[in-house]
Amino acid sequence: MRMLQATGLSLLLVFLVGLSATAQAADREKLLSDPGVFGTFAVFAVDDAWWRLDREARAKVGEEIKGVLDKHGEQVVADLYLLRGLSDRADLMLRLHSTDLARHQHLVLDFLATSLGRYLHNVYTFHGITKPANYVPGFSDDLKAAMKTPPDPGPKPYAIVVPIRKDADWWNQPQAARLEMMQEHAQVTTPYLKTVKRKLYHASGLDDLDFITYFETARLDDFHNLILALERIKENRHNRRFGHPILLGTVCTVGDLAEVFAR
Amino acid sequence: MRMLQATGLSLLLVFLVGLSATAQAADREKLLSDPGVFGTFAVFAVDDAWWRLDREARAKVGEEIKGVLDKHGEQVVADLYLLRGLSDRADLMLRLHSTDLARHQHLVLDFLATSLGRYLHNVYTFHGITKPANYVPGFSDDLKAAMKTPPDPGPKPYAIVVPIRKDADWWNQPQAARLEMMQEHAQVTTPYLKTVKRKLYHASGLDDLDFITYFETARLDDFHNLILALERIKENRHNRRFGHPILLGTVCTVGDLAEVFAR
Amino acid sequence: MRMLQATGLSLLLVFLVGLSATAQAADREKLLSDPGVFGTFAVFAVDDAWWRLDREARAKVGEEIKGVLDKHGEQVVADLYLLRGLSDRADLMLRLHSTDLARHQHLVLDFLATSLGRYLHNVYTFHGITKPANYVPGFSDDLKAAMKTPPDPGPKPYAIVVPIRKDADWWNQPQAARLEMMQEHAQVTTPYLKTVKRKLYHASGLDDLDFITYFETARLDDFHNLILALERIKENRHNRRFGHPILLGTVCTVGDLAEVFAR
Amino acid sequence: MRMLQATGLSLLLVFLVGLSATAQAADREKLLSDPGVFGTFAVFAVDDAWWRLDREARAKVGEEIKGVLDKHGEQVVADLYLLRGLSDRADLMLRLHSTDLARHQHLVLDFLATSLGRYLHNVYTFHGITKPANYVPGFSDDLKAAMKTPPDPGPKPYAIVVPIRKDADWWNQPQAARLEMMQEHAQVTTPYLKTVKRKLYHASGLDDLDFITYFETARLDDFHNLILALERIKENRHNRRFGHPILLGTVCTVGDLAEVFAR
Amino acid sequence: MRMLQATGLSLLLVFLVGLSATAQAADREKLLSDPGVFGTFAVFAVDDAWWRLDREARAKVGEEIKGVLDKHGEQVVADLYLLRGLSDRADLMLRLHSTDLARHQHLVLDFLATSLGRYLHNVYTFHGITKPANYVPGFSDDLKAAMKTPPDPGPKPYAIVVPIRKDADWWNQPQAARLEMMQEHAQVTTPYLKTVKRKLYHASGLDDLDFITYFETARLDDFHNLILALERIKENRHNRRFGHPILLGTVCTVGDLAEVFAR
Repeated sequence: MRMLQATGLSLLLVFLVGLSATAQAADREKLLSDPGVFGTFAVFAVDDAWWRLDREARAKVGEEIKGVLDKHGEQVVADLYLLRGLSDRADLMLRLHSTDLARHQHLVLDFLATSLGRYLHNVYTFHGITKPANYVPGFSDDLKAAMKTPPDPGPKPYAIVVPIRKDADWWNQPQAARLEMMQEHAQVTTPYLKTVKRKLYHASGLDDLDFITYFETARLDDFHNLILALERIKENRHNRRFGHPILLGTVCTVGDLAEVFAR
Repeated sequence: MRMLQATGLSLLLVFLVGLSATAQAADREKLLSDPGVFGTFAVFAVDDAWWRLDREARAKVGEEIKGVLDKHGEQVVADLYLLRGLSDRADLMLRLHSTDLARHQHLVLDFLATSLGRYLHNVYTFHGITKPANYVPGFSDDLKAAMKTPPDPGPKPYAIVVPIRKDADWWNQPQAARLEMMQEHAQVTTPYLKTVKRKLYHASGLDDLDFITYFETARLDDFHNLILALERIKENRHNRRFGHPILLGTVCTVGDLAEVFAR
Repeated sequence: MRMLQATGLSLLLVFLVGLSATAQAADREKLLSDPGVFGTFAVFAVDDAWWRLDREARAKVGEEIKGVLDKHGEQVVADLYLLRGLSDRADLMLRLHSTDLARHQHLVLDFLATSLGRYLHNVYTFHGITKPANYVPGFSDDLKAAMKTPPDPGPKPYAIVVPIRKDADWWNQPQAARLEMMQEHAQVTTPYLKTVKRKLYHASGLDDLDFITYFETARLDDFHNLILALERIKENRHNRRFGHPILLGTVCTVGDLAEVFAR
Repeated sequence: MRMLQATGLSLLLVFLVGLSATAQAADREKLLSDPGVFGTFAVFAVDDAWWRLDREARAKVGEEIKGVLDKHGEQVVADLYLLRGLSDRADLMLRLHSTDLARHQHLVLDFLATSLGRYLHNVYTFHGITKPANYVPGFSDDLKAAMKTPPDPGPKPYAIVVPIRKDADWWNQPQAARLEMMQEHAQVTTPYLKTVKRKLYHASGLDDLDFITYFETARLDDFHNLILALERIKENRHNRRFGHPILLGTVCTVGDLAEVFAR
Repeated sequence: MRMLQATGLSLLLVFLVGLSATAQAADREKLLSDPGVFGTFAVFAVDDAWWRLDREARAKVGEEIKGVLDKHGEQVVADLYLLRGLSDRADLMLRLHSTDLARHQHLVLDFLATSLGRYLHNVYTFHGITKPANYVPGFSDDLKAAMKTPPDPGPKPYAIVVPIRKDADWWNQPQAARLEMMQEHAQVTTPYLKTVKRKLYHASGLDDLDFITYFETARLDDFHNLILALERIKENRHNRRFGHPILLGTVCTVGDLAEVFAR
């Protein structure tokens, strides 16, 4: 630690970012595409007192967080997001994937035991599980084909989390009625498949939600138009909760976080 | 105390866990199955300041909590849950059972007077009472038989608490209409009887709830599907409050708690 | 003060309890049964910092509170309740009765100026006024007779406060329609007259409530069944707010409070 | 300052009260009766830390507040209210009248820069504007005559603020329908004109309200019955928000405030 | 820095205000009128602790904030508003315009890293995007002409932000029905075009809103009447959220802010 500090913080950050890019490569692809995987979104706000610590006390943020992610890296895929500056009352977010929520608990406990963690308030935690597509098999062939449009390559720096709860009418109607509405849903979203990546988690019972919807994009105007299109369809009448909060942040590395919180 | 510390914290923890397993064995079975028993769920969040105390000041957590539980152990069955890392804005939960709520008050007062307790905020307290099954006598024989499926053996590390309030329409309809809906309720839950243990508390008047539903499972995917099944039936139209909050944690021992809070 | 401390805290407490039993006897009966009397329920949560004061700084709680109650004792009847350990986010409650709310303000100002008071947050204050029974004169003779059942003698250690707000439909319907519903209300409550004492305060305009309902009982199971019975009648459709919060505590003396807060 | 303290706090208070009675006499009558005047209700809760300052640090409250009110006294009429002890989570209220809200902002900024102000949280601020009576010209002559009943002389120590928001149906119905309901409103209030003084502010757009209703009375029982009468008329069906909070306090002088906050 | 302080705070402030007037002139016009521009409203409340710092620690507010705005001035147009004294629980607001939200995040991160920023709580952040007028092309020619009325010249010191969310019915009706309602909307606003400047941001998906409406005026009575007119039309039935909060403040310079926060 001493030596690292001596070589300068900026060097350390480059070093950490490099490491974190390789350390979790193992099963990331699989955990991020398989059904039956648990996803946790843990959102934290930092206490004011943190910012009044002297710089030295805050300097080891990067190293400590990297230590926590590495320790659990074989089993839990962790993504980091900087919400500070874009979302009120929230500063950073962890997205975790693994096949067992207890592993997420252990990781978060270790995260909260770091120097920074002792100053964090866990303002939201949402859990969901991934499942095979529910309605897609019933869609028209044209729609199925359109939905295979791959996202454009290139960085998608913005991430948005929208928690959703449906009303009792939604769940009490027959599957065919839901299928029809979800087909309309899928149709209006196809124009945005190239620029807005999406991922869906089923949450009923694991939190006060039915779904967690997660988005990544470089085009927030497209994302806005996508949500607007979803407001204009029948399904919207069954959204008892849509957002509250909508969490908007930027994908970041341990190094980015360290830079912000060690300022 | 001094000596225990000298022998090392880990030894102490093994020791405590061993003790706590035997100390409350007395009437646990009975209190957890009888009607007419009060159940209290007291949920606490720890103040930031706790984590900034030096390690020594935090080291006696396990011993002190064990002392409180032992003191009341003849009359109150206490279970501990670690919510930290899984539920936002909440760190730990006590579940208490006895035939008199005043005993729960005394236990909680003692708990809050420990070193840790002085840093705890009591963010939720729910009370309920157990009663003989209300609707089961009117169910079909097949359903009654199916409902006798015993839970699979083995540990069920996850615990979930879902507070529920029904609307005025629910309570104002005739018992026969409620019976029909509860029969549908029971039917959709039978596939999960092996993997999800449930316990029901009646809460009207004791808190801003009508029911506290408590679940234990090793299979959070089954628990999720159980709740999803309950969303799809008519009864769901009468849930004015379902969760808010849903509390998700892991069953733990005094030793586990001590390990986390003395870090 | 010094001398009292020298003789031991427990002696002081016996002394205080003895005194408080006689000091307010004057017009208690009358103020608690007359119409036209104001009732105030002031609920407080103690700041964490209180528990970190040394014991000596906290030792004079009993003496100081007794001083405040005595100072106002000729005009204000004060009852104390311990909510800590039973109700979340609330530690103690004052119930005050007199013919003038300004007296309650003066008493609370003095209470908040004690050593303990400086660490209290006033989380709820509800005000109501007692009035002659509104609907009883229109009830059937049988019901009127049944309602005269006196409560069983003996201590009723639990107190519950349920704030209520009716909807606009309730207030806009003719008195006859309300009378019919209130007759049903009275009928379902008669089985509980022996074990659950009740008192009603009218609150419209004095707070965001229409009624404050206050209960004392030794039988929380009966109280639960009473509330359940009230949920099953038509009147329940007109409760825009019922509880939120329901406050549950135990009747206590200055000595009890002092014991808990001076720990 | 030194000298004033030497002459004793009580003398200072008498002195201040005397001064404040004359200092703002200028245009008070006019500003409190003209249309087109802005009214601001700024409500503050004092931080716990204030009460732990030593007495000397708190002694200059009266002098400082008087200084602020005098500085702005030519343009802003200020009234003070003590909410502490009667309303939860709020300790004092300023009511300001002038022809320009910016003047209220300057006064509040100065108020918050006093020793006490630095410990105040501004928990509510409501703004409204006075306007000529909207519906009265359309009332029957009898009602118009009845409405001219002057309030009884004598002190009216209690003040109550009730913020109100109407629903979209209210605003979308024709003026004639609103007139009919407001005539009913006026009729049921006439019995209380002698004992309850009222003042109305229009707030749409200036805050999350449509109206601020302000009351002064010595008879809280009459005020309660007035509100009850208003709940029983059709207009009540269109109150989307009525209160939340209802603020109840006592009219006070700078001296009264100083006495309470310098304790 | 040293030297500036030596020349006196008042001189510094004049200097800063002068600078800030020219520094951002570059693309302000374009960013404030083009479609496709992101607008961010970031609202902050200052922690009590700030006011207890000594004056010297607070003296560099102006210089630091100016440094942040200058650093980002080529890409982000920033406006400042003083909410303190007019809006509860909020002290200051930044309005930012640029073509990329990430720039707003960087600016806010730098702002929060100033001496003052370390004591700020980010209580609200709303984001929106500007778009070409949606309904205007379908309006009558008369209305289109009326809508071209330019605002009166002269300062408009008050700024008001009203966040709005429409209901599912609004979005699910055909464009023609929305056009009709928006034409009515436009008509009732024309009388206020001279005295109330307006700007609209589309927010769906970027926050828990559909629109952010921003107003500037010197005539708060006109602004009030404008909002009242909008309450009286059909569109109001589709406002699920209108305000909550309405933010009311005064346009200010860095110098004004510095003067208030360095007091």
